[in-house]
Amino acid sequence: MSTVDLNADLGESFGRWILGDDTGMLRVVTSANVACGFHAGDPATLLSVCRQAAEGGVVVGAQVGYRDLAGFGRRFMDVAPQDLTADVMYQIGALQGLAAAAGTAVRYVKPHGALYNAVVRHEKQAAAVVAAVHAVDPGLAVLGLPGSVLLQLAETAGLRTVTEAFADRAYRSDGSLLPRTEPGAVLTDATEVAGRMVRLVRDGVVEAADGTPLRLRPDSVCVHGDSPGGVAMATAVRSLLEGAGVRVAAFLTTAG
Amino acid sequence: MSTVDLNADLGESFGRWILGDDTGMLRVVTSANVACGFHAGDPATLLSVCRQAAEGGVVVGAQVGYRDLAGFGRRFMDVAPQDLTADVMYQIGALQGLAAAAGTAVRYVKPHGALYNAVVRHEKQAAAVVAAVHAVDPGLAVLGLPGSVLLQLAETAGLRTVTEAFADRAYRSDGSLLPRTEPGAVLTDATEVAGRMVRLVRDGVVEAADGTPLRLRPDSVCVHGDSPGGVAMATAVRSLLEGAGVRVAAFLTTAG
Amino acid sequence: MSTVDLNADLGESFGRWILGDDTGMLRVVTSANVACGFHAGDPATLLSVCRQAAEGGVVVGAQVGYRDLAGFGRRFMDVAPQDLTADVMYQIGALQGLAAAAGTAVRYVKPHGALYNAVVRHEKQAAAVVAAVHAVDPGLAVLGLPGSVLLQLAETAGLRTVTEAFADRAYRSDGSLLPRTEPGAVLTDATEVAGRMVRLVRDGVVEAADGTPLRLRPDSVCVHGDSPGGVAMATAVRSLLEGAGVRVAAFLTTAG
Amino acid sequence: MSTVDLNADLGESFGRWILGDDTGMLRVVTSANVACGFHAGDPATLLSVCRQAAEGGVVVGAQVGYRDLAGFGRRFMDVAPQDLTADVMYQIGALQGLAAAAGTAVRYVKPHGALYNAVVRHEKQAAAVVAAVHAVDPGLAVLGLPGSVLLQLAETAGLRTVTEAFADRAYRSDGSLLPRTEPGAVLTDATEVAGRMVRLVRDGVVEAADGTPLRLRPDSVCVHGDSPGGVAMATAVRSLLEGAGVRVAAFLTTAG
Repeated sequence: MSTVDLNADLGESFGRWILGDDTGMLRVVTSANVACGFHAGDPATLLSVCRQAAEGGVVVGAQVGYRDLAGFGRRFMDVAPQDLTADVMYQIGALQGLAAAAGTAVRYVKPHGALYNAVVRHEKQAAAVVAAVHAVDPGLAVLGLPGSVLLQLAETAGLRTVTEAFADRAYRSDGSLLPRTEPGAVLTDATEVAGRMVRLVRDGVVEAADGTPLRLRPDSVCVHGDSPGGVAMATAVRSLLEGAGVRVAAFLTTAG
Repeated sequence: MSTVDLNADLGESFGRWILGDDTGMLRVVTSANVACGFHAGDPATLLSVCRQAAEGGVVVGAQVGYRDLAGFGRRFMDVAPQDLTADVMYQIGALQGLAAAAGTAVRYVKPHGALYNAVVRHEKQAAAVVAAVHAVDPGLAVLGLPGSVLLQLAETAGLRTVTEAFADRAYRSDGSLLPRTEPGAVLTDATEVAGRMVRLVRDGVVEAADGTPLRLRPDSVCVHGDSPGGVAMATAVRSLLEGAGVRVAAFLTTAG
Repeated sequence: MSTVDLNADLGESFGRWILGDDTGMLRVVTSANVACGFHAGDPATLLSVCRQAAEGGVVVGAQVGYRDLAGFGRRFMDVAPQDLTADVMYQIGALQGLAAAAGTAVRYVKPHGALYNAVVRHEKQAAAVVAAVHAVDPGLAVLGLPGSVLLQLAETAGLRTVTEAFADRAYRSDGSLLPRTEPGAVLTDATEVAGRMVRLVRDGVVEAADGTPLRLRPDSVCVHGDSPGGVAMATAVRSLLEGAGVRVAAFLTTAG
Repeated sequence: MSTVDLNADLGESFGRWILGDDTGMLRVVTSANVACGFHAGDPATLLSVCRQAAEGGVVVGAQVGYRDLAGFGRRFMDVAPQDLTADVMYQIGALQGLAAAAGTAVRYVKPHGALYNAVVRHEKQAAAVVAAVHAVDPGLAVLGLPGSVLLQLAETAGLRTVTEAFADRAYRSDGSLLPRTEPGAVLTDATEVAGRMVRLVRDGVVEAADGTPLRLRPDSVCVHGDSPGGVAMATAVRSLLEGAGVRVAAFLTTAG
């Protein structure tokens, strides 16, 4: 029987600005990539998400990003590696403090936005992230794109690595994501998305935008909560996966 | 034989802006109140201070403040208690992450600037700080002004409390600090300052600005590192204390 | 025939975070209090609002606030008057730059949130705001609460003053607003709100929360755009006012 | 008789953090590139610099940068052109507001740090800056590197362009600056620096790091105020230039 994790980006509100439906998503996903305040997430929001994750048995990960609230961490920044390492340590620690207060713990780290894309190939920034994770707690897993430099370096460093596929994003034939700026980059039909994921988890195949069948064996499927209908789509994906006999479960336990 | 701790505010640089001589002060003090990024302190600076503190056997505390870089945390902010609690948890956790990466640990919490002054009397903000410390780690001590609401509430909550006197600040006859805006609020003569502290630690007496003798039994003496000559003054205070037979030692160990 | 202005707070999105329906509100109001980046409003959003205001003939005002994105400017900050003056100058100028680029001009200034409330009575902060407005451009009007220290000082300084009433907020019998934290502080029934405003503009009377009739002669009525249904309520207020023979028009022209 | 302008980056303090000696530099330079708050510069500092510039007859320019206080604007950011345009408009306007309050006016724009380097070749970001300057005020000049895309596009747009040389920076043989990370990138000997500038202004030649003579005819020479000895070096450069019969004067007048 196949097993897969469902992860989503959560805690991305900031003060007066609400983004996504954290409470709704926490009822569907098994792992929560919780923002850490640099690209999004005020402390009170993050604490609330950690508390709800603790109550719901959802595993908490630290979603670390560039220090860029105005750009939501979606703009590449040429941060010096030693600064990036310290920035990532700071963010992981901040969420650890809130998670501890909420009775749970940070179990993994996932880069966000432009940093996520950068560390697919940018060796220095990828190494900076890995160094931070390892130094704060070598028991933390790293969640990222299959084949990324990030995961290669994390593995070399002895960290547990976890791969993911994107439920609602179109792929290019080389396995990379079609950029958001391209037409068709974001898939919006819940049934289509859910069907793709069932095929991916069961058969290890997803179709690229040009029709090429891609072979992937992701440990986790990422669903997005910041779009209208995000919860509905995540729910559809989960239902169809379970209906197809796939077990949806976190890749880690909530306790350390 | 009397014993006293020497503490100073450190890690208050931010990016291109350097403030104080962290390396110099870490050779003199026994406890370092390390900024946590809200009023000052970029992560790379904080990591560097934690590493040097670890090497030098200096105990690390989290100096938590209002989210106000432009005002250096010196302006009262009417933050809602539940938001302040989460802000303090976030800051403690962030420094814990950096301290762990540096091979040491956060052992105590000291509010900074306007928050320090607010929690002398502001019950809701004091309670918010105490709730944060307790929830993140009830083993953390709280450093503050003798007689403050903060320390009363911390004690009630079962937290270890530590009192401090200010080496270079003038006192009013009620034991509160003369505000920085008043003439004579900051003492600059190293010999005078050191002499006051020897008398305070040995005899438990310090003279207020109006000449009233104040009875205090501080666990720690705060010296300031952000003024020119800060290291020299701290060194003078330490030398004179030790010359007078006072043992200068941290109130806690570096390990948890 | 009575005339009244309709104003609303606009431009309060920030990067990825969208707040309110600026485009919808600009079709209804005659004056736009455009955020200036300190409590809300990224430059691209502000530019877009200025452009739409220019196209729609809506007068642009600078909605200045405390430097507090995380608190949306809703937390009192004890900012030193000379710093507040410079902060307000900076914000007005920033919006002037964007307004000029959009082919329009800033014509008035309205404080936001906690600063709005502070300058009702806080003489030093009120004087700081007035000094800023006067120094940047003495042709700017000041929009505020009737009877506030802000408007008194603005008048003394020779600035044009404009008073406002709040369409969807409950009043206390002394003419101040019932704080948002009180039950019933925000009115949500569009018909009731519109009816109150018709009576206010035509008869100069609005009923306080305790039933006391308050006599007010506001130059402008403030409607809120950051709540769901904000545009619908503003539209209802405008329709009912016009149906009752009130002319809805800006208190200033768009050109300087 | 040759004439040259002397410009320096000023207003780069931020709140509690002081950087450089603005007052000292304003006695030496003829044009002040005043920070605008995105990479450095709190409003009260900027206002003070504008006032001193107004008193001293120093021309004020807007030194615009990326929104990156933690990185001092020295890290490339992949900002979308339309966002960068609005960011630059906002910064120019903010300084215009402060300059107006100080009785002077912004006369030119100079990009700072990583943005300065980016717009040497990055067409989209260069065009975004030019569009902003032109839209806010087509009477503003643009100060930049000779041969940069920025100045080419500014000229095409009908803006006045001004070229500069760097007094204390080493050049590569292609006319670009040796990056700060290279040894010898920053020159520290005041006499050598002053001698280079006299030769440059009089003969139009400066020697690159590899000995190649570079032919340049800069309208302005940039001296740096954020290093210890900055004022002394700027004074030496000015004295030697004047001693060699060069007239040191702004390329624009202070009034618009």
